[in-house]
Amino acid sequence: MTNIIDAGLVADQNAKLEAGLQADYEALGGMLARRGLDIEELTALAQTFDVAVPSWGAGTGGTRFARFAGRGEPRNVFEKLEDCSVINQLTRATSGVSPHFPWDKPSDASELRQAADSLGLVFDAVNSNTFQDQLGQEQTYKFGSLTAQSKEVRAQAIAHNIECIELGRALGSNALTVWVGDGANFPGQNNLRGSLERYLDSMREIYAALPDDWNVFIEHKLFEPAFYATVIADWGTSFACATELGPKAKCLVDLGHHAPNTNIEMIVARLAQFGKLGGFHFNDSKYGDDDLDSGSINPFQLFLVFNELADASLRGGSSFKPAYMLDQSHNVTDPIESLMSSAVEVQRAFVQSAMVDRAELAGLQGANDVLNSAQLLKRAFRTDVSPILAMARVRAGGAADPVAAYRASGYRDRVAGLRPAKAGASSSGIV
Amino acid sequence: MTNIIDAGLVADQNAKLEAGLQADYEALGGMLARRGLDIEELTALAQTFDVAVPSWGAGTGGTRFARFAGRGEPRNVFEKLEDCSVINQLTRATSGVSPHFPWDKPSDASELRQAADSLGLVFDAVNSNTFQDQLGQEQTYKFGSLTAQSKEVRAQAIAHNIECIELGRALGSNALTVWVGDGANFPGQNNLRGSLERYLDSMREIYAALPDDWNVFIEHKLFEPAFYATVIADWGTSFACATELGPKAKCLVDLGHHAPNTNIEMIVARLAQFGKLGGFHFNDSKYGDDDLDSGSINPFQLFLVFNELADASLRGGSSFKPAYMLDQSHNVTDPIESLMSSAVEVQRAFVQSAMVDRAELAGLQGANDVLNSAQLLKRAFRTDVSPILAMARVRAGGAADPVAAYRASGYRDRVAGLRPAKAGASSSGIV
Amino acid sequence: MTNIIDAGLVADQNAKLEAGLQADYEALGGMLARRGLDIEELTALAQTFDVAVPSWGAGTGGTRFARFAGRGEPRNVFEKLEDCSVINQLTRATSGVSPHFPWDKPSDASELRQAADSLGLVFDAVNSNTFQDQLGQEQTYKFGSLTAQSKEVRAQAIAHNIECIELGRALGSNALTVWVGDGANFPGQNNLRGSLERYLDSMREIYAALPDDWNVFIEHKLFEPAFYATVIADWGTSFACATELGPKAKCLVDLGHHAPNTNIEMIVARLAQFGKLGGFHFNDSKYGDDDLDSGSINPFQLFLVFNELADASLRGGSSFKPAYMLDQSHNVTDPIESLMSSAVEVQRAFVQSAMVDRAELAGLQGANDVLNSAQLLKRAFRTDVSPILAMARVRAGGAADPVAAYRASGYRDRVAGLRPAKAGASSSGIV
Amino acid sequence: MTNIIDAGLVADQNAKLEAGLQADYEALGGMLARRGLDIEELTALAQTFDVAVPSWGAGTGGTRFARFAGRGEPRNVFEKLEDCSVINQLTRATSGVSPHFPWDKPSDASELRQAADSLGLVFDAVNSNTFQDQLGQEQTYKFGSLTAQSKEVRAQAIAHNIECIELGRALGSNALTVWVGDGANFPGQNNLRGSLERYLDSMREIYAALPDDWNVFIEHKLFEPAFYATVIADWGTSFACATELGPKAKCLVDLGHHAPNTNIEMIVARLAQFGKLGGFHFNDSKYGDDDLDSGSINPFQLFLVFNELADASLRGGSSFKPAYMLDQSHNVTDPIESLMSSAVEVQRAFVQSAMVDRAELAGLQGANDVLNSAQLLKRAFRTDVSPILAMARVRAGGAADPVAAYRASGYRDRVAGLRPAKAGASSSGIV
Repeated sequence: MTNIIDAGLVADQNAKLEAGLQADYEALGGMLARRGLDIEELTALAQTFDVAVPSWGAGTGGTRFARFAGRGEPRNVFEKLEDCSVINQLTRATSGVSPHFPWDKPSDASELRQAADSLGLVFDAVNSNTFQDQLGQEQTYKFGSLTAQSKEVRAQAIAHNIECIELGRALGSNALTVWVGDGANFPGQNNLRGSLERYLDSMREIYAALPDDWNVFIEHKLFEPAFYATVIADWGTSFACATELGPKAKCLVDLGHHAPNTNIEMIVARLAQFGKLGGFHFNDSKYGDDDLDSGSINPFQLFLVFNELADASLRGGSSFKPAYMLDQSHNVTDPIESLMSSAVEVQRAFVQSAMVDRAELAGLQGANDVLNSAQLLKRAFRTDVSPILAMARVRAGGAADPVAAYRASGYRDRVAGLRPAKAGASSSGIV
Repeated sequence: MTNIIDAGLVADQNAKLEAGLQADYEALGGMLARRGLDIEELTALAQTFDVAVPSWGAGTGGTRFARFAGRGEPRNVFEKLEDCSVINQLTRATSGVSPHFPWDKPSDASELRQAADSLGLVFDAVNSNTFQDQLGQEQTYKFGSLTAQSKEVRAQAIAHNIECIELGRALGSNALTVWVGDGANFPGQNNLRGSLERYLDSMREIYAALPDDWNVFIEHKLFEPAFYATVIADWGTSFACATELGPKAKCLVDLGHHAPNTNIEMIVARLAQFGKLGGFHFNDSKYGDDDLDSGSINPFQLFLVFNELADASLRGGSSFKPAYMLDQSHNVTDPIESLMSSAVEVQRAFVQSAMVDRAELAGLQGANDVLNSAQLLKRAFRTDVSPILAMARVRAGGAADPVAAYRASGYRDRVAGLRPAKAGASSSGIV
Repeated sequence: MTNIIDAGLVADQNAKLEAGLQADYEALGGMLARRGLDIEELTALAQTFDVAVPSWGAGTGGTRFARFAGRGEPRNVFEKLEDCSVINQLTRATSGVSPHFPWDKPSDASELRQAADSLGLVFDAVNSNTFQDQLGQEQTYKFGSLTAQSKEVRAQAIAHNIECIELGRALGSNALTVWVGDGANFPGQNNLRGSLERYLDSMREIYAALPDDWNVFIEHKLFEPAFYATVIADWGTSFACATELGPKAKCLVDLGHHAPNTNIEMIVARLAQFGKLGGFHFNDSKYGDDDLDSGSINPFQLFLVFNELADASLRGGSSFKPAYMLDQSHNVTDPIESLMSSAVEVQRAFVQSAMVDRAELAGLQGANDVLNSAQLLKRAFRTDVSPILAMARVRAGGAADPVAAYRASGYRDRVAGLRPAKAGASSSGIV
Repeated sequence: MTNIIDAGLVADQNAKLEAGLQADYEALGGMLARRGLDIEELTALAQTFDVAVPSWGAGTGGTRFARFAGRGEPRNVFEKLEDCSVINQLTRATSGVSPHFPWDKPSDASELRQAADSLGLVFDAVNSNTFQDQLGQEQTYKFGSLTAQSKEVRAQAIAHNIECIELGRALGSNALTVWVGDGANFPGQNNLRGSLERYLDSMREIYAALPDDWNVFIEHKLFEPAFYATVIADWGTSFACATELGPKAKCLVDLGHHAPNTNIEMIVARLAQFGKLGGFHFNDSKYGDDDLDSGSINPFQLFLVFNELADASLRGGSSFKPAYMLDQSHNVTDPIESLMSSAVEVQRAFVQSAMVDRAELAGLQGANDVLNSAQLLKRAFRTDVSPILAMARVRAGGAADPVAAYRASGYRDRVAGLRPAKAGASSSGIV
């Protein structure tokens, strides 16, 4: 595996932090031991964690008002892979990359797959795009894609998804994530039921094209870009459709795609119970689909999601294996820094949730000891497992402090020189 | 049928309004004719409308802070029936009464059924209550009912629901509505999945007790009284459970039981599509489960719900027949006045939705004429069908202006004398 | 005044509808007369209504995901004026145009003013833009504008606003609307108080540059583009700042810029009471700042806003004169059609609110007759005043049915030929 | 000071935990020292923290659906004081008690004050109650209190508030908290502006009765018990009214009284900036005014509130001293346990916020280092300061583990025997 960041630099950075980390690790280990927990087990567990990075996340995001381009943004999928490799090299927790077509469409898929492999990366779920028109595209998605009234539009959207499956197959992926923004901006614009019927018809054709060992993930979203009614607006619709389509169809939960006040961890529990939890798009939000860094706004919610996953894992055993992916928009931070920090935050919740003694919890719940049941979760959440995460990284060859190591490496400056900004890159979605 | 309000008084009241109503009706008829609509057909349609009234709605509601008792509140189910009969007599749109047990539990069901019959009323869906403890009850529902950890608590709650079915059978009802407030106030209090498993186990026993021609309606609610997680919190859970239970289980939509910004008419469309729309609890709300008068806050939403019902009815034919019920809390109005007005508002949306030319709408939608599709709905909603509703009432023996006739009748003063207030009736749920 | 649409065509279109309109007008007039209302007074009132159109509204909008360009979009401010003139010619309710700088910056302001004048248009409030970077701009607004940490950035943003005032003066405007998206995406990114202190310092300089007869409108918005904290996030902050700045500073209410469930009409009442209601950006929304057509989602809310304006007008007399502007994003409709329909919807609410007998309402309120107080408003809202609005347009030289006349005119086809689309116009705010 | 819980028992309990606590404290001290923080300073700071407990919080709460009474609930203000004293004895962080009139109205104020004093308690802000009718009350608050149309009702409500001031004075309090639920359930019910005018008139009379060294706290709330419009619905209205009234009037922030998605910490910053931050009612919520235990749902939000308080304190010095009070409804937990845990959670946020190096933060903010600014806060929040809080309690004579010590004491069993439940105590606000 090629190291994009000089391994010596990482080692030097780690060396500076070594004594402090070791001391913190021992201090924490003692505290955990007094609670009956073995820090080495937790560190080993942390090392098993992996969350995929979206290829598009390596670029700077924006809003409909503006996009403020960053320096050295990747200009193609190969440069995106380089950035993703940096993230994985320093965190050792992000070996998967989730590509987006046609943005990342390779002229030669095997070349791309080899490039990833040489960087220690594999391809995670592939994503189709029928929410934008591409140059030279015959049909427009202005009035929908998989649900459009026009048969020709639907055929184009179906064909694109099937092409995504083929590309993904060549890249070694085994899942297709389908998100459509289809919907209506006004009451009356669409027949709400007719739209979903067309969605199901279109998805049946895509489903039929899935290889045996593939899954298709249905991603719901409350609103945006449609502002009155979105075809797959909630987990209920996603679940009903996944049930209609068959066992390869599962539901994908993006943490930012819900109505205000929604209890997302309960949705996770429901989908797990009914066998339809396919995976996650991790991010955080305060208002809508804000796509902020995971755990930056409501870290306790992220913990509670993993608390459900720990419960489901205990029940489901090794067969329970939802896909994890970050899905964020980095508008004011360096995307590499945000993705590294976010991977660590998700990993943190994973480790914290493993600290909950489920038998003890069940006992407290059975006794209706509400206060201590709640406190048991809070105690795990309150535990600062940073030394465990840092040690897990160091032991796997990563950086004790990924952001500091990244900054010390001068990577951003280097690629800024190699990747000049496109003119007009500050354009936005509105005129 | 006994008329609680003197029929002569109603006739006198109507006579005063007759000329004006006739003139308005003709003016509207002309306007509709110029749009290709026949007012007589619409009036006939209006006369077919019926929405059930909840027995408890006849009393004054309250909040956890206070209840300000009204005058002449009914003290038992027979007095509630009298009030419901007044509502139906004046509106001719509320022949059903939905009872609540144990609040309305009769010592002699046949006597109660006969009392209803003599007042021109029938019994609609029966409601169970496992969200409160009753005096002398063995087990407490403090920590849940159908989902409680304790087997004894669950058994008690199941038995109560089965008793409700038996009572309902004796009263001529054919549906049981199950709403449970079970849930958690804190993360960790309950195992989210375990709670729903217990719910399903309990419901299977209740389902097994349903007569052949009965339905059970599952009512979801986002929150309150549980403030962190409610077992049946959304339509997705309700739908999944109804599917698990079998064909007699359907979902009931209360308009106030959703997260902020939820598109409720789309939920209606989804449940209709998947064959699980059981019925409605009509009310309106701005914040939470405010239980305000139907159509008082967002009348366009009520219209859009009926627009979906009209669409589903066209597709489903006579087999599509969801149950309609008002479910409101009247804290600052005379309950009889609010229920009469609300029945008329729901009827209004029903008639307006019938004015939408669905073939024309489908044509506009097919042509992606978004603006005119939206305007077609708006035009129906904007049409003031009040003269049609008044004429439908008058022709059926009701009042042209129900509230005015009711006030003229002096009914409230009369029952205030007959039904003295209980001392301490202003108490609230908090100390 | 130049008519962009052939006056003869409008007359022909009106002639076809004349008999029907006359009959509907008379029918409605009779119904109103029976309620004690004079239709002629209402029609005369309707003719006094005017709402400004935003210049940018003539183009097709988009989201951060995509923009699907429309045909014949205006390429410069002169073409925007032509489109605005069509809207006003057919509706006779939109004589003002609100320009946006630098988008609409003229090389010669007097030429632009003359162009507007010749089209029967005047310039309403001018809008500054410090939420995007312009080509060749020295400082970036990536980390804020009026509130930026950098003094140079703030100076640039202040200078731009002062230039807007000067441009507006030359164009005959008398108000500056300041909306900034400044804020933070993460807790900790900004010192919340420091940001507002810098905002106030910057605004004081802009305020000082206002001519004597000018106002500055502060526009608040809950979120977007900032997703954790927006500097002017709510009416409370807007009000506090307007108070700090002085009497020329007032608050502008955009209907889509509030938290879920917010009672917007009460904010209108509060700002009117405290003398700080500057004006409105009318639109509608279901989720966030959806910028949908006015009255398309919650028409009753629009009515209730005008109900407050009618109350405030009664109290404030002629001195109460807030600015009215549409502010919408037309993603799936022809912008001209949406703006015409929306102007009519706002006018509808204005006329309906005038039908409320305020003395009668005060009497009912004083007697705590809650039900009839509510019904009095509902009765006005339910009244279909479409014939009044059509008659007002026809009498003023507009179209009885603006959208039909517009379509008959072939205007969009004509300008589509004259205004070829720019390549790549489908781009969006994200890469 | 009388110890309700045997001091020897507390000492025994602490002795069992001593070794572990000491070891954890040292481990944490080492970790903090490596970050440049002195654990002893933080422990000393923790000991300065104090949050008042509401007298009514000692009883079991409920919802409008039901109240499930707890065992041994206090029956009068003296028993409430005993429970409050237990909380303070074990946490050493709750020396103030906030009484509610008329619930806690003493026949002899000096006797009550002495009782508190003997228990080591003082009286914090007093609370008036005009949201319920009391037995024998002349006027009803059904249609409002300080804002009612009826002059007699307003006079009664004003007099009650003035009586509260007098009682508070006798008890040694120096602030009055005024919360009114006044508002409307329907559009049209109230004149929105007229209601606030009457509110201000009423408050001016109450304000005039304030002693020189007193404050009056205005508490806003979005909704409930009014479900369409609440007179003091948001901080903007609260702020405008406090400004109108004068310097003794300040705003009180209850964390559960805001619209969904509201950034509460920014409201705290705004009120501090404009000199009107009076105090807090701490609790947590997921949906509405859920009144859950502080920090149980969104602990990061609680931290961010204290982060603003730390910033304001730095700017304002010793003159910045908002009042802290818990305000929770304990429906499924032992109120004493919840109040002890909640006091600790608030104290935790206080200590964590003190760990943020404000100069370092300002530097990162000034450099637009968004990622590290955010991480700086997160690092403080992530730090588990439990050993600091425990040590602070032990050093002050409290319990290392308050809940465990409380349970070991058998206090609840003891008072359950002494305070028999009132019959019918399970009643709720609805019939």
